[in-house]
Amino acid sequence: MTDATSHCYTLHDLAERLGARVAGDGSIRVSGLATLSDAGPDDISFLANKAYLKHLANTRAAAVLLHPSHADECPVTCLTLDNPYLGYAELSRLFDPLAQRPHLGVHASAVIEAGAALGADVQIGPQAVIEAGAVIGDRAVIGPGSVVGADSRIGADSRLHANVTVCHGVVIGERAILHSGCVIGGDGFGFAHDGSRWHKIAQLGGVVMGDDVEVGSCSSIDRGALGDTLIGNDVKIDSQVQIAHNVQIGDHSALAGCVGIAGSTKVGKHCMLGGGVGLSGHLTICDGVQVTGMSLVTNSLHEPGVYSSGTGAMSNAQWRKNAVRFKQLDDIAKRLARLEKHHGGR
Amino acid sequence: MTDATSHCYTLHDLAERLGARVAGDGSIRVSGLATLSDAGPDDISFLANKAYLKHLANTRAAAVLLHPSHADECPVTCLTLDNPYLGYAELSRLFDPLAQRPHLGVHASAVIEAGAALGADVQIGPQAVIEAGAVIGDRAVIGPGSVVGADSRIGADSRLHANVTVCHGVVIGERAILHSGCVIGGDGFGFAHDGSRWHKIAQLGGVVMGDDVEVGSCSSIDRGALGDTLIGNDVKIDSQVQIAHNVQIGDHSALAGCVGIAGSTKVGKHCMLGGGVGLSGHLTICDGVQVTGMSLVTNSLHEPGVYSSGTGAMSNAQWRKNAVRFKQLDDIAKRLARLEKHHGGR
Amino acid sequence: MTDATSHCYTLHDLAERLGARVAGDGSIRVSGLATLSDAGPDDISFLANKAYLKHLANTRAAAVLLHPSHADECPVTCLTLDNPYLGYAELSRLFDPLAQRPHLGVHASAVIEAGAALGADVQIGPQAVIEAGAVIGDRAVIGPGSVVGADSRIGADSRLHANVTVCHGVVIGERAILHSGCVIGGDGFGFAHDGSRWHKIAQLGGVVMGDDVEVGSCSSIDRGALGDTLIGNDVKIDSQVQIAHNVQIGDHSALAGCVGIAGSTKVGKHCMLGGGVGLSGHLTICDGVQVTGMSLVTNSLHEPGVYSSGTGAMSNAQWRKNAVRFKQLDDIAKRLARLEKHHGGR
Repeated sequence: MTDATSHCYTLHDLAERLGARVAGDGSIRVSGLATLSDAGPDDISFLANKAYLKHLANTRAAAVLLHPSHADECPVTCLTLDNPYLGYAELSRLFDPLAQRPHLGVHASAVIEAGAALGADVQIGPQAVIEAGAVIGDRAVIGPGSVVGADSRIGADSRLHANVTVCHGVVIGERAILHSGCVIGGDGFGFAHDGSRWHKIAQLGGVVMGDDVEVGSCSSIDRGALGDTLIGNDVKIDSQVQIAHNVQIGDHSALAGCVGIAGSTKVGKHCMLGGGVGLSGHLTICDGVQVTGMSLVTNSLHEPGVYSSGTGAMSNAQWRKNAVRFKQLDDIAKRLARLEKHHGGR
Repeated sequence: MTDATSHCYTLHDLAERLGARVAGDGSIRVSGLATLSDAGPDDISFLANKAYLKHLANTRAAAVLLHPSHADECPVTCLTLDNPYLGYAELSRLFDPLAQRPHLGVHASAVIEAGAALGADVQIGPQAVIEAGAVIGDRAVIGPGSVVGADSRIGADSRLHANVTVCHGVVIGERAILHSGCVIGGDGFGFAHDGSRWHKIAQLGGVVMGDDVEVGSCSSIDRGALGDTLIGNDVKIDSQVQIAHNVQIGDHSALAGCVGIAGSTKVGKHCMLGGGVGLSGHLTICDGVQVTGMSLVTNSLHEPGVYSSGTGAMSNAQWRKNAVRFKQLDDIAKRLARLEKHHGGR
Repeated sequence: MTDATSHCYTLHDLAERLGARVAGDGSIRVSGLATLSDAGPDDISFLANKAYLKHLANTRAAAVLLHPSHADECPVTCLTLDNPYLGYAELSRLFDPLAQRPHLGVHASAVIEAGAALGADVQIGPQAVIEAGAVIGDRAVIGPGSVVGADSRIGADSRLHANVTVCHGVVIGERAILHSGCVIGGDGFGFAHDGSRWHKIAQLGGVVMGDDVEVGSCSSIDRGALGDTLIGNDVKIDSQVQIAHNVQIGDHSALAGCVGIAGSTKVGKHCMLGGGVGLSGHLTICDGVQVTGMSLVTNSLHEPGVYSSGTGAMSNAQWRKNAVRFKQLDDIAKRLARLEKHHGGR
């Protein structure tokens, strides 16, 4: 639905930006990026996954970015690159209409409190609020309705989309992308119980993020109780994710949608958590761990690798029978051991 | 807590609107709608579920909407209808205070950027933002603090409650209801890995919704990577739901709270996903599938029916014993097979 | 990251506020609160968990709050208290920079609709909206970009952080804390099906909260269909929680992140739901129930105690084998029973 007509590049231009090689006419101009099957004569396309090779022969694209080994099969001009998926990522950014929007400056309706500091060339959208003591880095974009709390810092070249909330005393690194509805620095969930009721523990820590972090729509990252919640460099967080107080996420880790991480758990570098994964509190997850979707992890993981829990879906009728038996599982195991003891068979 | 005193209908009026038949005095006026046990002498009530039949005899309601087969048991005037639950739905809308609010027009504090187009009789709440190129359909209501991004279209008679975000290049159909805090068109979660770090894949697609879609509070529907994320007609989405990029949801499907659907999965028509259900990416779920609460589906489903996964709750002591045995299940199965082989019994 | 230098107390002051006893020099001044290992010479620290006792001997804190039984081991001045964790909670609030912010009054950019009533000493942040008929209690704080809907009431001394949405006809008690992005009073998920499509059931109830309730970032509490959704006193709700229409939560219960509760379920008093727990609709959960993380409860629970469901994480390779066997579990149980019948062993 996005109108990309304002972008127009020659294949030569693109090849230069991507470090690719043109096989064919480099003067051809393309104004859009599309899949092999959807692309039209003004589009460039790409082949990065063999599953789509079947669409290559019939593509109507003006040109295709692909691995050199597929150049011979390409019916149109091609750009060759060793990692065409990376090349696709770069192309996508070149055709992103957001990157080509006019500079909007600071909107008249935005509220910049006294004592806030705005860097060079910042854009502050309508109805945004920058509280006292906040520092907005050079070229940062603060979307409409977004709020940057007192004494928080937004790194250079970061973008807060619309209706983002960065609470007080939070540090966002450079080139961050915070999507709409996300909340960085809400209170962690801390209470002391006196035997009959709860007493709030004020959350005095903050959130400190490295550079190149992305946070999805409606995700929440809570501030620390005393120390800070720490998000490393190049950490990618999807939508609807909950990160509790004093969690630490190592560099380059990626968390898919609906992940929930309880307080003080440390996730290593280069970890990948599938959608809906839950991590209990106070765990240590080492570097290089992957957890598959909707698994619950209640113990620390000290070896890299892939981990899972749960059961796969089946028909409800079949499931009902098996789920009942799950409640008898310990009994089943004991009865089996008894049979083995009496009758052998191992 | 909602004051419904401004609504007042005769039973005759109501019967006409619902296509119901009055058995009794049609000139009785009612000003509210309540359950059989809560209703007072100014209220109409309804019986749509036999579980509540026991409350009929003692209701203090002025009138009751019910199936003709229960008319004889009704101690007060009744409206009869073949599907009283549908009738209740219609009554509820007649007594909805939102439907009777004064027209507010475009609030002075709202920001309507140059190049945005407002239809006839639109209402734009305080602090709302309509970006350049956005088109707001006739009679649409944009709540306080909501943002409609550049080049997005909101269909006629749609309502965005407060603090909704519709990102750029999104199409919302007619009669949509978007609840507070929801985000339509945030970026999908797409990155290419170069072996050491992530490179963002700009999300160039949009979100295209049919007519009569409802989206709950704090839900997120991500924009497509290249093509669009597609939400059919009459799709109902509850709160805290995450729909990833390029997902397709067929007409008339309903997704309960906390559902998460990973990228590119296609859900058919007339499907129902229970609360907390997770669907992996790139699946095809056929028409007429129901999945029970908190189930994980990792394979395509080609037959309509009810599906489930997981285990039911039990006491933690019992659960601990059984959960440990789950880890031995393959071993248990093999040992059983060995015993059977040695000792027969099948 | 929070600058706490504006707080400064003598140990004597603190002891008096906490009801603690100073062992040492009560005139020492402290300006911060930190853990035993992080504290510096201007900080007070605390020992509330024996796991941290090992850090006591080497702490650089000016003073430590602890149980009298540990006073002898403390190398610095100490404050003794029977429940040092409760004392820590109180200290945390004394050092909370939010509590010491200057009073901001009603910001010029806030929109207060005609017919809204503001109590004494309220603070209304920039870009906030108070709709007609809303009542804001004395000393309440409404954060930037927050919206209080028509005819809603915010109790005295409550705080709505930034970008909170309280819909129309909602009652928030006293001393509530509502974190950014949360939505109180969005529509419940109610539709009647006519055999081919959905008809909306307008949600005519509200949400009524007791006093001392806290709701985390991006959580949603839906309004009732006819009666109200009810949240008791001293209920603590974490981030990303979904509470459906007509749910009731008893006093002093605590719900961790990502909990989802389906419609009309009643949760008792003093219950604790772990992260990601799901409760089906129309259940009754008695007082004093605890449910461990990511468990699904589909039946009412009539006995206090700890409940669980699910399976623990293991290596994906091990899990695949066991998960397949789960689908055979009923068969395994029947085969075992057959073997037992033929060969004894019980």
